[in-house]
Amino acid sequence: MLVVTNAPRADVDVVNGLGALGVATVHEAQGRKGLLASHMRPVWSGARVAGSALTCEVAPGDNWMIHVAVELARPGDVLVVTPTSPCDDGYIGDLLATALAARGVAGIVIDAGVRDVARLAEMKFPVWSKTISAQGTVKETIANVQVPILCAGARVSPGDVVLADDDGVCIVSRSEAAGVLAKARAREEKEEALRRRYAAGELGLDINNMRERLKQKGLRYVDAKDL
Amino acid sequence: MLVVTNAPRADVDVVNGLGALGVATVHEAQGRKGLLASHMRPVWSGARVAGSALTCEVAPGDNWMIHVAVELARPGDVLVVTPTSPCDDGYIGDLLATALAARGVAGIVIDAGVRDVARLAEMKFPVWSKTISAQGTVKETIANVQVPILCAGARVSPGDVVLADDDGVCIVSRSEAAGVLAKARAREEKEEALRRRYAAGELGLDINNMRERLKQKGLRYVDAKDL
Amino acid sequence: MLVVTNAPRADVDVVNGLGALGVATVHEAQGRKGLLASHMRPVWSGARVAGSALTCEVAPGDNWMIHVAVELARPGDVLVVTPTSPCDDGYIGDLLATALAARGVAGIVIDAGVRDVARLAEMKFPVWSKTISAQGTVKETIANVQVPILCAGARVSPGDVVLADDDGVCIVSRSEAAGVLAKARAREEKEEALRRRYAAGELGLDINNMRERLKQKGLRYVDAKDL
Amino acid sequence: MLVVTNAPRADVDVVNGLGALGVATVHEAQGRKGLLASHMRPVWSGARVAGSALTCEVAPGDNWMIHVAVELARPGDVLVVTPTSPCDDGYIGDLLATALAARGVAGIVIDAGVRDVARLAEMKFPVWSKTISAQGTVKETIANVQVPILCAGARVSPGDVVLADDDGVCIVSRSEAAGVLAKARAREEKEEALRRRYAAGELGLDINNMRERLKQKGLRYVDAKDL
Amino acid sequence: MLVVTNAPRADVDVVNGLGALGVATVHEAQGRKGLLASHMRPVWSGARVAGSALTCEVAPGDNWMIHVAVELARPGDVLVVTPTSPCDDGYIGDLLATALAARGVAGIVIDAGVRDVARLAEMKFPVWSKTISAQGTVKETIANVQVPILCAGARVSPGDVVLADDDGVCIVSRSEAAGVLAKARAREEKEEALRRRYAAGELGLDINNMRERLKQKGLRYVDAKDL
Amino acid sequence: MLVVTNAPRADVDVVNGLGALGVATVHEAQGRKGLLASHMRPVWSGARVAGSALTCEVAPGDNWMIHVAVELARPGDVLVVTPTSPCDDGYIGDLLATALAARGVAGIVIDAGVRDVARLAEMKFPVWSKTISAQGTVKETIANVQVPILCAGARVSPGDVVLADDDGVCIVSRSEAAGVLAKARAREEKEEALRRRYAAGELGLDINNMRERLKQKGLRYVDAKDL
Repeated sequence: MLVVTNAPRADVDVVNGLGALGVATVHEAQGRKGLLASHMRPVWSGARVAGSALTCEVAPGDNWMIHVAVELARPGDVLVVTPTSPCDDGYIGDLLATALAARGVAGIVIDAGVRDVARLAEMKFPVWSKTISAQGTVKETIANVQVPILCAGARVSPGDVVLADDDGVCIVSRSEAAGVLAKARAREEKEEALRRRYAAGELGLDINNMRERLKQKGLRYVDAKDL
Repeated sequence: MLVVTNAPRADVDVVNGLGALGVATVHEAQGRKGLLASHMRPVWSGARVAGSALTCEVAPGDNWMIHVAVELARPGDVLVVTPTSPCDDGYIGDLLATALAARGVAGIVIDAGVRDVARLAEMKFPVWSKTISAQGTVKETIANVQVPILCAGARVSPGDVVLADDDGVCIVSRSEAAGVLAKARAREEKEEALRRRYAAGELGLDINNMRERLKQKGLRYVDAKDL
Repeated sequence: MLVVTNAPRADVDVVNGLGALGVATVHEAQGRKGLLASHMRPVWSGARVAGSALTCEVAPGDNWMIHVAVELARPGDVLVVTPTSPCDDGYIGDLLATALAARGVAGIVIDAGVRDVARLAEMKFPVWSKTISAQGTVKETIANVQVPILCAGARVSPGDVVLADDDGVCIVSRSEAAGVLAKARAREEKEEALRRRYAAGELGLDINNMRERLKQKGLRYVDAKDL
Repeated sequence: MLVVTNAPRADVDVVNGLGALGVATVHEAQGRKGLLASHMRPVWSGARVAGSALTCEVAPGDNWMIHVAVELARPGDVLVVTPTSPCDDGYIGDLLATALAARGVAGIVIDAGVRDVARLAEMKFPVWSKTISAQGTVKETIANVQVPILCAGARVSPGDVVLADDDGVCIVSRSEAAGVLAKARAREEKEEALRRRYAAGELGLDINNMRERLKQKGLRYVDAKDL
Repeated sequence: MLVVTNAPRADVDVVNGLGALGVATVHEAQGRKGLLASHMRPVWSGARVAGSALTCEVAPGDNWMIHVAVELARPGDVLVVTPTSPCDDGYIGDLLATALAARGVAGIVIDAGVRDVARLAEMKFPVWSKTISAQGTVKETIANVQVPILCAGARVSPGDVVLADDDGVCIVSRSEAAGVLAKARAREEKEEALRRRYAAGELGLDINNMRERLKQKGLRYVDAKDL
Repeated sequence: MLVVTNAPRADVDVVNGLGALGVATVHEAQGRKGLLASHMRPVWSGARVAGSALTCEVAPGDNWMIHVAVELARPGDVLVVTPTSPCDDGYIGDLLATALAARGVAGIVIDAGVRDVARLAEMKFPVWSKTISAQGTVKETIANVQVPILCAGARVSPGDVVLADDDGVCIVSRSEAAGVLAKARAREEKEEALRRRYAAGELGLDINNMRERLKQKGLRYVDAKDL
């Protein structure tokens, strides 16, 4: 089992830029990849984070490696934890969150359970998890830290950009992040324009010239009184 | 595939009357039918809506028909969307919500996913969905709009009354709505009286004369010290 | 079927002491037992309760026995309801909650559904349930009240201490409660000390002398540039 | 609550014709409607049935109405049972299956549980269910028999054709059944021809002239050595 | 953590008697208690076992205690394994099954995963599990063996009778087993008589005199042509 | 969207060697990685396959790309299909299976639904899927073929070795396959020796010298009569 030190981090400006745009926009802009499964939900409503992935495998029911990850943490990191087989235990509570926050960690994404969630909300410490559970864990089995992992159906490498908000969690690979940011900003502008048109009552059917293609596909309009 | 225009709407006064009473009371009053499955949850807590059903089928991973539905929308409609096979993608985000709100649509009920939920909450636009997902959709496949559909285990026809609140979603058929309103009001009055008696410490066992029937069924009371 | 009257209650001071410490701490302190399954969630965020278990079996789709339980309720009880086979119906709404609150019941834990949840939140009446559903129930079938039950994977006897908060629900047996309180207080103190050290930037690896054991297990550190 | 006697049955020849073609072919032929949710599985592998729907609602945990349905059963009927709220209890065992078989019932479709499944397999009595459970039921609450119902997400009216095999369960409305049979036979012939061409190594890309359209959509071919 | 040696076993004749009757009949006969959740399914179809419970807790992802349990096994035991928090790993494969079979263990009930299931079927070694998974486990954490446990929602004490077949798994407490056997035999006789009457075409409505009570409950019969 | 032609294949001898050993043994031998989620089950019992991965993405409810994949298929390939968002539709039936078999494809692994499963079993064509569903798909949306994909929680690259049997599905990367084969054979030999010792009644506790370590961890043995 391996712990990789001094893994690269994502560029802070790019992270912040992507964070300002949010999960839904960035996910679209990068071609709909990198989205974690929809069971990953924020522990408190309104949480929002962007950071550099600090990846951590854990054995089922065993949070030992999270202590190893804490030491590697740098300000702006988002800890991304995946169990080596599915587990709903509460791997992280307010103590570990305190330790992570003290190292400048910006948030946690974990495909398992967390606990002390009332406290996490008070701390305004952003956490996305599969479930909430008071079930504690042991410290007996080692696993890899800061290696590429699969988390909730997405691939995460150390230093990838992690974005999370009320819509879920999305990963942008470090090498593509600057390009994705440019595309996401372009998309955001386009969407803002579209939003104004929609708000003014314009129809998607007209804006996107959909009527002809719908007709070709065979869509028929019938008045209710003629049925 | 068919789009039905000028489908009838529910009576506004009846809609408002039912909306004031809420899902649980109306569902009981109409004989416990029309309830959508309990996986249909409000995207933001405290959402509440009543309106006339604007029904819309969509293909899995394809939100094209929602654009068709927008054109048909009238003030007071609630858009009810069902995928032709189960799908958790985020069919609707803040753009489509803006377009729908601009047409006066009062809310959305969708047996699939939605996204931009932080924005939907800010807009105070009421949405009930199966899940939350940033996963976008395509526009390739047509389906029916404003025809009777099955949504989350309930039958919904265009113009049926759609009620939704923190307890879930309930459908009242247009033809029965006025009668159901009368029954629901009667029930509400009865429940209010009951509430006062319960609050004063009266027992359901006495109010409903249950003791004799419980005894006949074989219920025995034993003091703990005699066990 | 049996209703046991005058079942013992937990000691009020012990209940309050445990309630102040919360589910996660107490669950750890008693050796990680008594936790209900993680599908048991509070109906409104921030709910928190501690009390003496008033246990109640119900048939699927049938809430008759809850009326029987109301009569047995004493101030400080927490009603714990389990269906004899899995059911998601809304067994309890604001009427029964009103009746229970009038008898001084402190909260409800039910491995099934509840309804009128907006009202329950307004009443600040704490409820943990498996789901939320407007589906009502009948009153036809009897079951046991105030006997030992299994609820959401845990054993609950009348008079056991029931603790519930945003982390879930935990049961402490009445006979062990005083001892568990002592252990939980000791744990809380220890955790508070640890919290301060973590907040100051100390590492779990150092505090717990983990480095040597990790090495023995075979954990290797490699610098990213040497990969 | 209503029991409808002398409800119409589907035409036997049409039933047999559809039964010979199977669920997947018929479902396609009727425009992909009428399919029950995929959680409906045969209790024993290889089961296959076609018949006329005998519809039956049941309360959760209560199989009383099935006894009422038995009396209404005619040879060739398929009993279709739906609980009024979700329930996994074992509503039907070998006794009720014996009673149904004695009346000539051809099989059972139930969106709940069944038991005595080893015996049902020995009897070669075809049953599709949501689950298998030994949990018995009571006889306390009435419901409707031989009225239109919703079962596992599909609408079923008395006398509709019920088809079920290892692929699941599909409903064909009685009024459309003859037309669907004609379309399904045409489809079967077309598929048989296609099967021969595929077996001979022909490609769907060529048979359906897909290459041009794929190119227009933007599909690019790249040799692995050029990546 | 505790390992209890020389725990009592169930009476062999009673075990065999109950085993001959099967899960569904015995569960009914003992008042519908002791049934494990319906997610417990046989690994190979047609498996059937009756024996004396050898109970074993395991940590998530850790099968160490099963090795401890093997030493305690006696001929006729059924190993009953429960993880201390939910886990789907494959705790037991053909090696452990071989070791258990060598000690005379009659079968396994485990609320987790197993592997090598093709081999288990070849060995005709009966196993009921929550899932099938090739995921292996570690040997790091201890737990209790031969103490009362909760398994898949039921309480199991060492020496209780474990019955399992295609309908699921049922536990009969050792102290009640002889009485339950007598009741179950009586039930079986009654059911056999009923089976003959049903097979002869008699109706449950008549045999159980249900018509009057159905009428009192409000059930109405209407001929389809009068609707 | 990209289709990669002439992607490398795994070495046939290595594939056959791994196939002879099975999923559970190979998964252990390669350090417990590459296992697909346990919801991936064989469509017919006893199916078993080993081959070279032919990877294929599909849009939800759209099987167009499978036709593209058929053309690329070579004898010994196993088609591995993943939807770009979760979908349970029946993407593949006997027609596509016929086309694939005609090209020499050895089997299918699909994280979605399949249909015509009775026919697939007759054809002895091995298929692992998430579910069984008669729901058909459209041909409107393109996706990538023969690129690295994520399928049911595992990473699969074109030419990786795919192993599947009754225990599930495991992926071995092409570059590591020969090494894994050597390790797996060594493991198999060691397990065979162990199997003989277990069959002879030896205990894991003795073979693995576990008693001392269990004692150090705090495991205590108590005779039942001393409790």
